[in-house]
Formats: sequence, C-alpha cells, structure tokens
Amino acid sequence: MKTVGITIKPVDERAHSLASELFAWLHKQGKQVVLADCLKDVDADSCIPLEDMPKQVDLMVVLGGDGTLLHTARRFIGSDTPILGINLGHLGFLTETPAGGMFDAVDQVLAGRGRIEQRFSLQAECFRDGKKMKEGYAVNDVVLQRNKNPRMIEFEMRVQEQFVFRLRANGLVLATPAGSTAYSLSAGGPIVHPRLSAISVVPVCPHTLSNRPIVVPADEVIELHIIQSAAQAALDLDGQEHMELLEGDCIRVEKDGSVSLVYLPGRNYYEVLRSKLHWVGQIEHAD
Amino acid sequence: MKTVGITIKPVDERAHSLASELFAWLHKQGKQVVLADCLKDVDADSCIPLEDMPKQVDLMVVLGGDGTLLHTARRFIGSDTPILGINLGHLGFLTETPAGGMFDAVDQVLAGRGRIEQRFSLQAECFRDGKKMKEGYAVNDVVLQRNKNPRMIEFEMRVQEQFVFRLRANGLVLATPAGSTAYSLSAGGPIVHPRLSAISVVPVCPHTLSNRPIVVPADEVIELHIIQSAAQAALDLDGQEHMELLEGDCIRVEKDGSVSLVYLPGRNYYEVLRSKLHWVGQIEHAD
Amino acid sequence: MKTVGITIKPVDERAHSLASELFAWLHKQGKQVVLADCLKDVDADSCIPLEDMPKQVDLMVVLGGDGTLLHTARRFIGSDTPILGINLGHLGFLTETPAGGMFDAVDQVLAGRGRIEQRFSLQAECFRDGKKMKEGYAVNDVVLQRNKNPRMIEFEMRVQEQFVFRLRANGLVLATPAGSTAYSLSAGGPIVHPRLSAISVVPVCPHTLSNRPIVVPADEVIELHIIQSAAQAALDLDGQEHMELLEGDCIRVEKDGSVSLVYLPGRNYYEVLRSKLHWVGQIEHAD
Amino acid sequence: MKTVGITIKPVDERAHSLASELFAWLHKQGKQVVLADCLKDVDADSCIPLEDMPKQVDLMVVLGGDGTLLHTARRFIGSDTPILGINLGHLGFLTETPAGGMFDAVDQVLAGRGRIEQRFSLQAECFRDGKKMKEGYAVNDVVLQRNKNPRMIEFEMRVQEQFVFRLRANGLVLATPAGSTAYSLSAGGPIVHPRLSAISVVPVCPHTLSNRPIVVPADEVIELHIIQSAAQAALDLDGQEHMELLEGDCIRVEKDGSVSLVYLPGRNYYEVLRSKLHWVGQIEHAD
Repeated sequence: MKTVGITIKPVDERAHSLASELFAWLHKQGKQVVLADCLKDVDADSCIPLEDMPKQVDLMVVLGGDGTLLHTARRFIGSDTPILGINLGHLGFLTETPAGGMFDAVDQVLAGRGRIEQRFSLQAECFRDGKKMKEGYAVNDVVLQRNKNPRMIEFEMRVQEQFVFRLRANGLVLATPAGSTAYSLSAGGPIVHPRLSAISVVPVCPHTLSNRPIVVPADEVIELHIIQSAAQAALDLDGQEHMELLEGDCIRVEKDGSVSLVYLPGRNYYEVLRSKLHWVGQIEHAD
Repeated sequence: MKTVGITIKPVDERAHSLASELFAWLHKQGKQVVLADCLKDVDADSCIPLEDMPKQVDLMVVLGGDGTLLHTARRFIGSDTPILGINLGHLGFLTETPAGGMFDAVDQVLAGRGRIEQRFSLQAECFRDGKKMKEGYAVNDVVLQRNKNPRMIEFEMRVQEQFVFRLRANGLVLATPAGSTAYSLSAGGPIVHPRLSAISVVPVCPHTLSNRPIVVPADEVIELHIIQSAAQAALDLDGQEHMELLEGDCIRVEKDGSVSLVYLPGRNYYEVLRSKLHWVGQIEHAD
Repeated sequence: MKTVGITIKPVDERAHSLASELFAWLHKQGKQVVLADCLKDVDADSCIPLEDMPKQVDLMVVLGGDGTLLHTARRFIGSDTPILGINLGHLGFLTETPAGGMFDAVDQVLAGRGRIEQRFSLQAECFRDGKKMKEGYAVNDVVLQRNKNPRMIEFEMRVQEQFVFRLRANGLVLATPAGSTAYSLSAGGPIVHPRLSAISVVPVCPHTLSNRPIVVPADEVIELHIIQSAAQAALDLDGQEHMELLEGDCIRVEKDGSVSLVYLPGRNYYEVLRSKLHWVGQIEHAD
Repeated sequence: MKTVGITIKPVDERAHSLASELFAWLHKQGKQVVLADCLKDVDADSCIPLEDMPKQVDLMVVLGGDGTLLHTARRFIGSDTPILGINLGHLGFLTETPAGGMFDAVDQVLAGRGRIEQRFSLQAECFRDGKKMKEGYAVNDVVLQRNKNPRMIEFEMRVQEQFVFRLRANGLVLATPAGSTAYSLSAGGPIVHPRLSAISVVPVCPHTLSNRPIVVPADEVIELHIIQSAAQAALDLDGQEHMELLEGDCIRVEKDGSVSLVYLPGRNYYEVLRSKLHWVGQIEHAD
C-alpha cells in the first residue's frame, strides 16, 4: 500500500484537524497521500477530486460518520481498494474505529492486518417513456417515497418480471444488508446479516395492513412502476442523492459491484448491533 | 330541518349528477336547499360558500368519500348541524351510506330517525419566535412530517408542559379516534374507539426503536418543538391543509369543538372495521 | 393514618430485613403495624392474612417489585386505602420509590403529602355451559392464551354484545392503562395514559395480518368465546392467577373497582416511561 | 417413476376417498403404489410405515394441508424423492394444487413436467449437562417457547459461537424461508424468499423493545441457552413435535438436508403470497 487517500465529513473542524495530523503521520511513514478537495488548506497540491481516488489510492481513510463513509463508498463501487472509516462521534454501523484509535488502525491496516468485508451495492435506473433518464448507486438503500406533499404514492412492484404487489404507501425501502440497520429498520424491516446476498423490500406506512417486509435474493431484478402519484414521488439513494419522478416512470434496481470495507481483526457484528440498538435495555415486566 | 346543504367531491361526475337529483328531490319535499360553489351549474342562485353553510343549514349532505367529508366537516367544527356522508365508491370509515341508499337515508334523517355521533376535532397553532403564525383544524389528524427531502426531522414533545421525548423520525401523527383508522393505522397506531376522548401519538419511522404509540387524554395540551430539521418540516391537517415549518417553530395542539355525523340506526362500528380492514382474511398456518 | 400494613416479595432477604426496620421505625412513630403472613419471624403476633389487610390498615406498604405490588393490589380493589410500593431493584412502572427513600416516603405519606392515583381493575368471569365457573380480578391484564401446547387457539370477541372478530392467534391481551406498559407492550399494544378509562385489546401473534390493537371504552363489556382450541386455552390474570379453559367456554370481562396507589409529589409519568423504555437510546442513522 | 406413495391428513374423509381413487387410477397407469398406515382400509397389503417411504417411492403424494405435508416432508429430509401436495381446502403455502387438479397434476409430474423446488430443513439438538438428550428436524420452524405457564422465559442466543443477545420473551422462532410465512409471520418476522439460504430469528413478544427480527446465513450454527425459566420451556418443531426443556439446557440448531417439493410449471411464488396474505385488500384512506 503505497498511496493513501483521505477524506472527511465536510465542515467538521475535528475531522479537519485529525486529517491534518494523519497527513503528516503518513508522510513520516514514507507513504504518498492524496486528499479530497475539502482538505485544500491542509495541502492544496495533494488534492484530487473524490471520483479520481479509486484509481490512485491503495487505502482510503474516511473521517466522519456512516453518512460520510457512504458518500465516499459510492465512488468506490467495484473497486478493491479498502476503505477505513474512523468515526468522530458515536460508533457507526459502518465506521467502527473511534478517532482515538486512528493511528493504530491505519498502522495495522498498512501492515496487512486489516480484515476486508465486502458490501454489495445497488444500481437504480429511472426510465421515462421507455428511455433511461437517470441512474445512480446506493450502498445502503434505494428509497421510493413521496416528495413534497402529504398524500400517498401508488406503485407496482415486479421481481424478475413477476408481479408482486400494487401498493399505496408513503414509500418503499430497498435495502442491502448494510442498509438493513438504517432507514429500513425504522420502517419495520428486519436486520439482514451482511454475508447474505439479499435485498430487503420494506413498505413504509402501507395502506394494505397485511403487507410485510420481504427479503429477496439480490440477483433478482426489481422494478417499481409509479402508477399514480397525487404526491410528487422521488427516489433517494443512501438518503444522499435525490431524483424526482413522475407518474408512469419505471425504476429498475439491481445488484451492482461491491465496496471493500476494512476492519480490525476484533470486529464482531453482533457486538455492534447490541451497542447501537441498545439491546441491553429491557422493560422489566412485573415480577 | 328546513334547510339542507349539499356539497360534493369536486370534479366527480357521478357526485354532480346525484347532487342534481337530490336537489330536485328535496325541493319536492318542500325543503330549502343551498349548494356549495362547485355546484353552480345545478343552480347558481342556490350557491353559497362552504364556510357559510354551518349558519344556514339544518342538515348537510356530502357526496364523495371520507376525504370530501373531512374537507366539509372542518367547517362544521363546533356546530350542531348533522352531516350525512354518502359514499360514491367504497364504504368509508366516515361515509357509510352507499349512493344507492341516498334518498332513503336523507328521508330517514329528515324524519328524525338518524343517530348523531360526535367526533371531536383538534386545533393546531404554529408559533414562531413567540408569535402565533398560523392555525388550523383537523377532524382526523395533525401530522408533523418531513417536507421535501429525504432526511429526518428532530423534535421534542411535551404534554401538559411535561417533557415526553425527543425524537428523530420521519414524522409524528396526532390522531383523533376518527383518525385512528386513517394514516395513524398505517404508521402502526392502534384503533381507538370513537367514544373515547383520547389522542393517539404515533411516531412515523422513529430512530429510537423502543418508541411506541401512546394514547393520551384529549384534554391535555400537546406541544411539538422543531429542534432540528435537516429536512424542511411541515404540518398537515387531515392530509388536506399544509403549513411549512422552520427550525425553532413550536406547534401547540389541543382538543377543539365537535362535528356531528349522522348515521342510520343500524350502524355498527365493528362491522365497518371488519369490512374496511378485511379481518375475514386469514393466513392459514399449517394444519 | 393509625395503622400501617407491610408485605414483601416472598423469600427476598433484603425485603425481609427492610420490613423489619420499617416495622421498628413505625412503632417509634406511634403507629400500629400489621404484617403479612410471610413476615412471621419479624413479629408473629402482628401477622394477619393479606385478605384482611384492606379492612384494617390506613396505609399499605409493599416492598418488592411491580409483581409483588400487583399481587397485593388485587386484594385492595374497591378500597380507598393507599398502597405505597417500594422497589428493591429497578424502578418499576408501579413501584417508583427506591429502597433508599423508604423512610422518607412513608414519612411524607403519613404526613398527608402523598398523591393518590387511581388505577381501575378488571373482573373476569368464566362461564361453562351457562354456569359461572370461576371469577378473578386483574389490575394489569386479563390474558387469554394457549396453555400447554404449540397450536393456536381460536375465539370470537364481542364488545357490548356486538361481534368484533373471530381470531386465530397465540392469545389476546386485555390491558388496563396500568397494564399497557406490561405484557401488552411486548405484544405490540400502545401505551395508554392512566387517566384514560380505556381497555387495550391486543392480539398476540394473530393469523389475520390486518388485525391491530384496539382501544375501547372501559365501561363496555367484553366477551370472549373459545371456539376451538387445539391447544388447551387458559386465562391468566396479571400473569399471577391462572384458569384452565375448555372449548365452548365464555369469558366475560368488565371494569371493576379501583386501587389507590400513592406517590410522592414529584412523580412524572413520562419520566418513568423514558427511563423504563430507554427512550434515550437511539440508533444513529448515517449522517 | 415406478412407485408412488400416498399419505393423507388423518381422519379426513375426503382425503381418504380421494386417496382411494388415486390408488385405483395409478394402478391403471401401471404404477406400483404404497400407502401410509392410515390408509389400511384402502388396501392393507400396500401399506408401509411412513418412515420407510423415502427408500421405496419415486414420487410421494400428500393429500391434506400444509400441516400434513410438513409431517410427511420431515421423513424425506435428504431424499431426492419429489413430494406433491394436494390441498383439500384452501390454497396452502406448500400445497398449491387443489383437489380438483389432482389427476392432472400427478399425470404431469409422472410425465416429467413437474418443477422441483428444494426447501432446506433445520436440525435441532438438545443438550443437558453436556450430553445430547434429544434431536429433531423441522422444515418450517424450530420454536423455543414457554410451555405451560404465563411467565416469560429467558435465554441467550449465540451464532457461530458469538454472543448475540440475552432475551426475556414469550419465545423465539427460528424459521426457514418455507417457514417464514407461517408462525414467524404472525410473530412479526419478514417473508424470506425460498431461494435464499437464510434463517429468520424472530423474537415473540420480547421485553427488549428494540429487539428486531434478524436474518442470518443458514450455514451458521445457532445456539440457545435456557438461562432461566420461571415458565417451563419447550421446543416445538413445525408445531408438531414437542420437547420439554429445563433451565440450563442448550439447543443447537443448524441447517440440514433438503426436501424436494414438486410443482406444476405455472407456479408463481408471489401469486401465492398475494392470495394467501390478501394483499388485494386495502384500507382506503380519506380522499
């Protein structure tokens, strides 16, 4: 690993100062370092656009929270470059290393002691009148939802060209296992282990009360047809990229390449769940 | 009952034609009839604005669905005038009489054989920088939710000035018993019998997984403080009136006057529930 | 308040030793003290059966958890005697005073500074072949459920003699507001404020996926008819009293008298909810 | 396919008479036929025990519902013999062919036009004091639950020897994808597509409100340790086989062999879901 990239949560002072320290430290280790554009005042000459990082770096370090990591990871879809997330505040589902452990973690990863975990992504294409209008990618989730207004949207879902249901709802979450602990979970979806190649289909406030989350194989193609939309509908990718939709639009979602997250050996998926979801806390029924 | 008012679901041809028949029929019975503005081409001289109806009519007939009835009912809050809903399509929670039974139903109500059921309403006031900015009314629900954008809103709820919780969520539904079978139900809220003077407080996609719907006495004042709103927040009344909100805004919701819905004697609340919620349908587990 | 009764969680050493201290302390204050039978070795001469307490004591002190308090409270249904719960471990929904605050709390209550909160109870009667077979009382909940075996039970519910639904399920919880934070909550029921006179009807693992919790006025009579019971069915009162049922049995549940719980002035219902339900804990979605 | 086995739902007259017709019809086709013991009066000489069927038959026909099919399928775990379910009443999740289509379906399957779908099974072993006490198999679900009494059970779950959670609950469902539409669904679990090699872990009425269903890879070993059981606990396999448990017992559940269900070419998984779960039925919110 010769070249390390660094990016941070924008306008976060602490991230900025840590990035600056890491930049100096990596140079001392004899590494080449490239910085995201938001780090111009650390060293303008080392800055390159985020989209150029995947080709140039052997390790990508992200200082921020899960959101910053997702923002970065979407550019690394299909790349083998490991991404190391350093969280600045609370433990994240994706960014487990606390700021205090940054140098040690980078050191271990550079020494080859990191453990790579693949997370697959979703590609979403939007078709209007038979033509592809837009496309985008998500590591956590593709969410179809009402855009501006209080009314419901109505849509049909097909999986592998088979009709599944027609639904009136606030929206629908299509989540990867990585995304199953994000918005999908708030909407009532299950937690899906990251080793599974599966997509959770989770209706948000469905009118049909017998509707339930469905987990489908990730190699099946999912299509959503916007039947009627008293509300303007929209598609949101990782809660970060936004496409406005019209009645009649068709969304096609399928599995795309993976990103490589790197963790230290001690990582334990269930420990993160317990900690993030506060499973220790119980109501104590009468006894 | 000397004077009968008629209003309809706008731009619905069948409603328009039924209203025209009812107008003629009522005249034959020697009644005075006033029409909502959307019925100008039936008889322009009989038209008055919807907001003037409560003072002038002894019975209000609404041809449409639950939405049309709600739209009308908000103008009759605090009035004793009975409102009779005639549904044009499916059975509604509020509009139980099918179009085919219209003349019989109006006849029975005029003859004093209708049964009045009160439904209380909610008043919502929005304060900004200590000043009341707007107010509105709802018969079904007051809903705080994200406006335009995929991010969450964050707010605090107080009941009778006691802090209840701080929550990050898609939104929060405050529903009357009448509204408990509408949006609140899709969001996971309980069905609340209309005889109860209670408000359901139902989080929509809450981040805190241990959050649950709470049913509070309707005579308690509920306040919502918009703490942070990466999304623009909005307040929606019965899904029909819309107020945009800013960070720092405070919403104050309290019980207001009732509306008087009139039903035929046979009405059975649970039969409507069974029919609307399809309780007949069961999954048949293995046996 | 001349006479104070004391009872404890059975076979709990700490409760036993605190009861002994309280017994001595109350004597010093010039009070008469009677003890439940489980406190014979503190002073056998002061012991009386729990069922005789309501007529003899002016204040009842319960050392234990919510379960011990429920066990005692069922004997005080319809009595005005205040009951003070001292919890020995975690904060309870019903027993808020920690052991360390026992003397102060008793002192304040004896001085008339306690605040009484009424909690209504439910009476459950079981009829077989038209004859009343058994009856019992519950302060938290009446639960119809499978007894021994993995199969479902099937039953019909009527409210005020109106048919509500026929259901195949693991069971059905009928909860008072006090019980709404106990088993009912685990089964998906709403939290119901104790000031409401309402009963939550909460199906446990219903086959009909569109079934939802219903909150009905507490003055309505609920009947459950056991249609078929591949499993043996049973009725459980507060999770403490147990009646075995047969096919064809009919259970009639209605509101009964109240119990008077006494709390110190600072009590805040929502603070207890927040603490017990761990509402502080949030998942932090990506940002 | 030379030899066909037939079994039926016990004491079901219609199943009995159809089996008799099928027996005669198959003989006319020149097939050998063996019957389950419950069909002695059709032809006692052709009867063999159900457990001997897998070695002797090339096609197994089951007349009954999903329960009868499960009962039979557990004997065919690891066998390639296709099983054809003929439902006698309602469409089943596993038995899709109605009685009226029986001869046609058997004909098509014998002609090689059936489509095989594999469903994996679970093996459950119960250890006490370090010794294996019992073992059993399930095609739908392994359910840990309270046995006789109203109290909760408390247990720990480990997956691949990693601690996942300690839980107080009514029970826990471990469901295969086939079982995800059975008890698991009533308990709040997701629908899992049968092509996925995954196990749903679904708590039943958990005390910890932040607990959620988890879907784990089917090749991971799940262990449940009974910590405390105020209630007597039990393990139920497909709701049909029952093991009583004690405090301290450890249950080890892992993926076992598959069963081969045979369907006609038209089969559509989502159509069965829609039909069984009544997704057509919607509540119609106000509009």
